[in-house]
Amino acid sequence: MTAWTVLEQHHAGLANTISLRQLLELSDRFNALSFAVNGTLFDFSKHLVTDETMKLLLDLARDKGVAEARDRMFKGDKINNTEKRSVLHTAVRAPLTPALVVDGEDVMPFIHDVLAKMRAFSSRVISGAHTGHSGKAITDVVNIGIGGSDLGPRFVCEALRDYSGALKTHFVSNVDGSAISSVLDSVNPETTLFIVASKTFTTEETMLNARIAKDWLVKHTGNDASVAKHFVALSTNETEVSAFGISADQTFPFRDWVGGRYSLWSAIGLSIMLHVGPDNFDALLSGAHAMDTHFKTAPLESNVPVLMGMLGVWYRNFWDYPAHLLLPYDDRLGKLAKFTQQMDMESNGKAVRADGTPVTSETGPFIFGEPGTDSQHSFMQLVHQGTNPIPADFIVCKKPHHALADNHTSLLSNCLAQSRALALGQTFAEAGNDPFGVFPGNRPSTTVILPELSPFALGQLLAAYEHKVFVQGIVWGLNSFDQPGVQLGKKLATSLKPLLQGAPATSVDASTQGLLRHLTQS
Amino acid sequence: MTAWTVLEQHHAGLANTISLRQLLELSDRFNALSFAVNGTLFDFSKHLVTDETMKLLLDLARDKGVAEARDRMFKGDKINNTEKRSVLHTAVRAPLTPALVVDGEDVMPFIHDVLAKMRAFSSRVISGAHTGHSGKAITDVVNIGIGGSDLGPRFVCEALRDYSGALKTHFVSNVDGSAISSVLDSVNPETTLFIVASKTFTTEETMLNARIAKDWLVKHTGNDASVAKHFVALSTNETEVSAFGISADQTFPFRDWVGGRYSLWSAIGLSIMLHVGPDNFDALLSGAHAMDTHFKTAPLESNVPVLMGMLGVWYRNFWDYPAHLLLPYDDRLGKLAKFTQQMDMESNGKAVRADGTPVTSETGPFIFGEPGTDSQHSFMQLVHQGTNPIPADFIVCKKPHHALADNHTSLLSNCLAQSRALALGQTFAEAGNDPFGVFPGNRPSTTVILPELSPFALGQLLAAYEHKVFVQGIVWGLNSFDQPGVQLGKKLATSLKPLLQGAPATSVDASTQGLLRHLTQS
Repeated sequence: MTAWTVLEQHHAGLANTISLRQLLELSDRFNALSFAVNGTLFDFSKHLVTDETMKLLLDLARDKGVAEARDRMFKGDKINNTEKRSVLHTAVRAPLTPALVVDGEDVMPFIHDVLAKMRAFSSRVISGAHTGHSGKAITDVVNIGIGGSDLGPRFVCEALRDYSGALKTHFVSNVDGSAISSVLDSVNPETTLFIVASKTFTTEETMLNARIAKDWLVKHTGNDASVAKHFVALSTNETEVSAFGISADQTFPFRDWVGGRYSLWSAIGLSIMLHVGPDNFDALLSGAHAMDTHFKTAPLESNVPVLMGMLGVWYRNFWDYPAHLLLPYDDRLGKLAKFTQQMDMESNGKAVRADGTPVTSETGPFIFGEPGTDSQHSFMQLVHQGTNPIPADFIVCKKPHHALADNHTSLLSNCLAQSRALALGQTFAEAGNDPFGVFPGNRPSTTVILPELSPFALGQLLAAYEHKVFVQGIVWGLNSFDQPGVQLGKKLATSLKPLLQGAPATSVDASTQGLLRHLTQS
Repeated sequence: MTAWTVLEQHHAGLANTISLRQLLELSDRFNALSFAVNGTLFDFSKHLVTDETMKLLLDLARDKGVAEARDRMFKGDKINNTEKRSVLHTAVRAPLTPALVVDGEDVMPFIHDVLAKMRAFSSRVISGAHTGHSGKAITDVVNIGIGGSDLGPRFVCEALRDYSGALKTHFVSNVDGSAISSVLDSVNPETTLFIVASKTFTTEETMLNARIAKDWLVKHTGNDASVAKHFVALSTNETEVSAFGISADQTFPFRDWVGGRYSLWSAIGLSIMLHVGPDNFDALLSGAHAMDTHFKTAPLESNVPVLMGMLGVWYRNFWDYPAHLLLPYDDRLGKLAKFTQQMDMESNGKAVRADGTPVTSETGPFIFGEPGTDSQHSFMQLVHQGTNPIPADFIVCKKPHHALADNHTSLLSNCLAQSRALALGQTFAEAGNDPFGVFPGNRPSTTVILPELSPFALGQLLAAYEHKVFVQGIVWGLNSFDQPGVQLGKKLATSLKPLLQGAPATSVDASTQGLLRHLTQS
């Protein structure tokens, strides 16, 4: 009998009887199921699991070779098999030594050279030594990128706003012209630095927006040479970068073994470094590296990303829960779900295994979320009383960066109250015999308590989610590092563009034809 | 046999054979399934439906009394039975006549008096006639509210940014102190107007944040009287408003028949009126009223909110699709999903019927979404190739507010390409025999094309979603207008607060006890 089948039977045996009310009466429950990693607490005690469940989930992890796959990733094996690439976002946050040899080259000196170059450049921008074309210091940074070249830096800059310096950071991603227009309306061409973030320097959205920004600058300055002072590139395509007018001095490279959705730690993080300074960026990397070390070395029984991943598998595949909810009780983490949607859903939203065969189980869940307490006045009604349970992660900081003690106590009490209400529910009798006050309870959640929202703690948290997604991809047999869905969209959009510009729409389906007619008629 | 059972059999008969590829070859498909309402096109041709399906879905709507329930709502019956209230967000966007009598009073004069008061006040703030305590014109507006007193205005102000005047609008909702702190750090006490939006004027988050804003102001001005110049209230609780220091002149009331999540059209929309001016606010109301008229008068067969609602029921209950995706191809609609999550999930995320009996079908779906094209570089991978199909709404404007024609053509072509790819998929052969390039297709979507993102078109769109949610609530037998889940959270949070302040945590579950210990130890 496979580990999977054993779990199916285990689930069938407890599904109708397991009770969080009862489990949460066990005095050792919290100690047995909460884990501290460098000051951050991960509490799994409110999950629909017994000791036996945890054992069987780890049996499944072993059966699927999670630890071996992890080791292959860290040492640079080409586990992104469809694209024949190593997966080494963990390397860009590692110390210079030990060496890490990929295709015959120790890549660590390259990584640290880029970091040193980013640090030197950021320091000059922050200090005002790097100026715009008219000699004024830079006041605004505009990051132009999309997907992984946008979501990570955008989220982290907002999350670490308490660490920001004087530079104002903007992000433009959407090809919708209102994105770039509204940012250009708010900045000054003398004091704005544009970061063009595109690995290939050919991403349609990014290059359209970058050219608009360039035209806008040149229109104000009257000369092409000003581009060199106001643009930097995060890219591997030197030819295209140079053709755009950006010098090698202001180009920050990375390698193809850093996937877009795992790239905020690499040169793609330049906007973060400009926002919070090089030392805080280093601390962010250190936090992620600390979680890498934990993931690599902790026994499976206390390995936080493994536990997060296997609990996700438990709900997704055995309880048939289709979604996963992120509930940061922190206004600064407002874009956590938006960021994690890419990391998780683009990695594991697949129906074909890495070996080319169709999957036979459900794979990646829907991810969504918004900060509490806002969400309590919004969709939490459904989370408490809707017909599909949804496992949730509550994330909160023990210590705030402000001095409003009463607000923080309210925030913490609301956070604890929500996970408690989900777990325990409310019976008809407890509701005073009001049928509308009945809450089913038995709805599982994780609580993560960061000591404070420091760059280190944030780095740890994000790396934990990255590895959780990795663990699930291994269990499901996926290559979590490609994204064939993006390609198909590009191909079809390219073929439709001429039809919007007047070419006859004879070759398309009836619906698209009708929509094209509506859009092109005057 | 009930209409529901007939639909079940119909579903069973076509589920394995229905093919969007085939349906989209029918030349009349688009004309038969797309509907224009005052210039906005709603295209349902990419849905997994035949003519027979549409007929049976409308039979179900008739069987459940959708039209009768709609009529009861519009005429002010107390359909919010648990709270014994009428549901009249449609009245606050209606003309002065005809009269609408609720509990013996024609409420239309009250509604239009409040509108006139809002208009007069907004005009004075916008023109600079209303000044701060030192005689300077107002430059910044801070809306302090949560849930319905935040999400609607926050979303609409961003959506209508092309119509905004000189006032800068900020929103504070979360009890997390970093929300109010970061806004207060960015505004000037001489030129900032605070709007405190709370029906009861006792909402914990809102009143904590309002008092912090008041203290901040008084600290700068040195006198309590300055509050009168810098604070307005949107509330029904005159006593509390007056105790706070806000005059009746600057209090804008509404009635209990406007639910929080349907309140942006009422006095709660004051921040919108300040942002875009009274005429644009009027146009927003006119758009919503135009959709109300359509919903009230169009035959079910061409009634857009009814069709949207019934298609949602089709997927939720017969195809067992648990989620619904919102994909605005418009950067300005970035918060559409965040807003709709409350409107939909708080309304229909319920397991008890309006008559107190448990539901026997699934109810409200998970709602999420982000703008395209960003989402194509994020979670769309899962939407195309994940194991759970998810119906999607694509929303795009025919005409942009910017002059970047190439960007807009790209945006439109990507929007059409995504819905097309979802519908048609890509076969193994079409993928060049690449197993990773196979897309299942047959994934349904609606496309909504607004003429442009005008206040009128936005009003129409939001009212269509409101009525869609209403239709689904009726089919599921719910009271879509209460929110018992919010109450339980409040009760539990209140009981936990003392434990965070040092009271002994003996009465709580083991998990909460452990978390409290972690949070309170120094």
